[in-house]
Amino acid sequence: MKRIVLDINGLDLGEQVFYDASYEFLKKHSDLEITLIGNTQYIKTKEDLKNLILVNNNLKFTDPKNIRMSLKENTSMNEAITGVVEGKFDGVISGGDSGSYISSLTFKSGRIEGISRPAFMPIITALNGRKLLLTDVGANLEVKPENLHEWAKLASVFSSIMFNIKNPDLTLLNIGTEEYKGFEYVKEAASLIKNDSSLNYIGFSESRNLLKGEFDVAIVDGYGGNLILKSYEGAVLSFKDSIKESALKKLKTKIGLLLLKPVFIDIMKKLDYRNIGAAWVIGVKSLALKIHGSSDQKAIYSALTQMYDAIDKNLISELNKVKNV
Amino acid sequence: MKRIVLDINGLDLGEQVFYDASYEFLKKHSDLEITLIGNTQYIKTKEDLKNLILVNNNLKFTDPKNIRMSLKENTSMNEAITGVVEGKFDGVISGGDSGSYISSLTFKSGRIEGISRPAFMPIITALNGRKLLLTDVGANLEVKPENLHEWAKLASVFSSIMFNIKNPDLTLLNIGTEEYKGFEYVKEAASLIKNDSSLNYIGFSESRNLLKGEFDVAIVDGYGGNLILKSYEGAVLSFKDSIKESALKKLKTKIGLLLLKPVFIDIMKKLDYRNIGAAWVIGVKSLALKIHGSSDQKAIYSALTQMYDAIDKNLISELNKVKNV
Repeated sequence: MKRIVLDINGLDLGEQVFYDASYEFLKKHSDLEITLIGNTQYIKTKEDLKNLILVNNNLKFTDPKNIRMSLKENTSMNEAITGVVEGKFDGVISGGDSGSYISSLTFKSGRIEGISRPAFMPIITALNGRKLLLTDVGANLEVKPENLHEWAKLASVFSSIMFNIKNPDLTLLNIGTEEYKGFEYVKEAASLIKNDSSLNYIGFSESRNLLKGEFDVAIVDGYGGNLILKSYEGAVLSFKDSIKESALKKLKTKIGLLLLKPVFIDIMKKLDYRNIGAAWVIGVKSLALKIHGSSDQKAIYSALTQMYDAIDKNLISELNKVKNV
Repeated sequence: MKRIVLDINGLDLGEQVFYDASYEFLKKHSDLEITLIGNTQYIKTKEDLKNLILVNNNLKFTDPKNIRMSLKENTSMNEAITGVVEGKFDGVISGGDSGSYISSLTFKSGRIEGISRPAFMPIITALNGRKLLLTDVGANLEVKPENLHEWAKLASVFSSIMFNIKNPDLTLLNIGTEEYKGFEYVKEAASLIKNDSSLNYIGFSESRNLLKGEFDVAIVDGYGGNLILKSYEGAVLSFKDSIKESALKKLKTKIGLLLLKPVFIDIMKKLDYRNIGAAWVIGVKSLALKIHGSSDQKAIYSALTQMYDAIDKNLISELNKVKNV
């Protein structure tokens, strides 16, 4: 029996969507138990499912910026993480404050041996369908060469296990492909990664090639990763809105838009922020997924699918071996 | 009589496109003299235009990475810049090595008083048509709060003069809109800019909103700006290619694509890399425009338009006054 815990406080749409997504997911997966921790009193339950457990805990962080205090508070997020650390659950999902989440996970669950800084890592689908791991996307603004090297190792193992890829193609994102370009720490990271025989390094890549499906793993500092991810999101949405607005002005283009609708639906499904909205916390000893505060039922369902799959593939024990590589 | 000099070495498409674009431009502007410096021997000239002057100089930099040596070489780029400094020309355009260009301009032309670091600044068209100045996009990876403040002042004046905008809306690009987010230098820059009564600061913006047309000037470090610009370029091109590829698979969507064609042409024209490909060098005492190495005739024509306009509006004397603000 797999066991997933969800911290259900902190989502724009409220707690009900967690219940609905979990209920729907459990209908398809009988070897799973889901625990929802948070403000459960207003949740409208459907039928009594034995493997869908509600735990009431209204407590949110008093001040998410005060990490020291936050770690001590018995919030729904901390209760969920503690449950995972104590072995009650196999993985945790939360839509709460990112900073509190990664701090609490680092402190309570601990870092994987040899990993100095946990990071956020979304799974992105390139336009040719290839799955791409991008890390970090915002947890670590300032980084050292070793951080990038460690994430490269974790993400490569992740790619191998989750997508069944042998020797994942790994790149460092930089402002140019020439070896002499970029910050010193990026060049030093490139040299560390190149000399690591467990990694299949293909050199620097530019952010303009992110969605072309040319690699499996892309490593970058948290500042750069955050800017890139949000630029892509912004560009695609702006471009789509702009086509729509412009097309609706004339009958001919209106018909064109109607005929092209299946194409747009298909592409937007690939690039859906509800998939990108989820990011793995890598580098800690537990399976932990962060979902966007604006997540809806579909986004939570997608997060449950990822977590279920990770537990099924025994991902965390493989990641814990990274130190020995 | 306005006088523009073009360094015509260093373009993927060769020297002829410079001549063709200049010839075309001069047909529409009789109060202008254009000088082309570079490998002129194979240029096919059309008719003898008095105000289109060719100066042969085959010399390129021996090693663009060796800045000290490059500054001394009598390359076409250096000859063009020296001509501007000596007052022979009102502005320079080059498609050569970016690093050499900005170094040579800084050294030979000098910095505007009070400006410590020149930067690259492209003009971008948002999807609602609003013109946006983005700086820096790659000249300065590491920055200080003062650098961001100085660029904010230059770009605001630029926006006022070139686009006739009163109190341009100015933003700092950051990983979040909350005041406590981001690097310390960004927060310090925010405080400097907020306290500068000559600037109309609207707070932090995220890179996802770049093309929404919410501001006139966006300031960011060169590393972030470079990643953002290339991400937008990559996203738009990938999205467009993907629509096309997917649409061509079925007759219905093929027709849809055909009907929507004018919409795509319209939007791509707005977002055309041949416009974004050009970036102003701000912070030096001369008018200098950098064009992309892959520029074609249209891109050069567009650069000539920008430079002609800047000379016409006496932009450089307004920028030189920034120190007094």
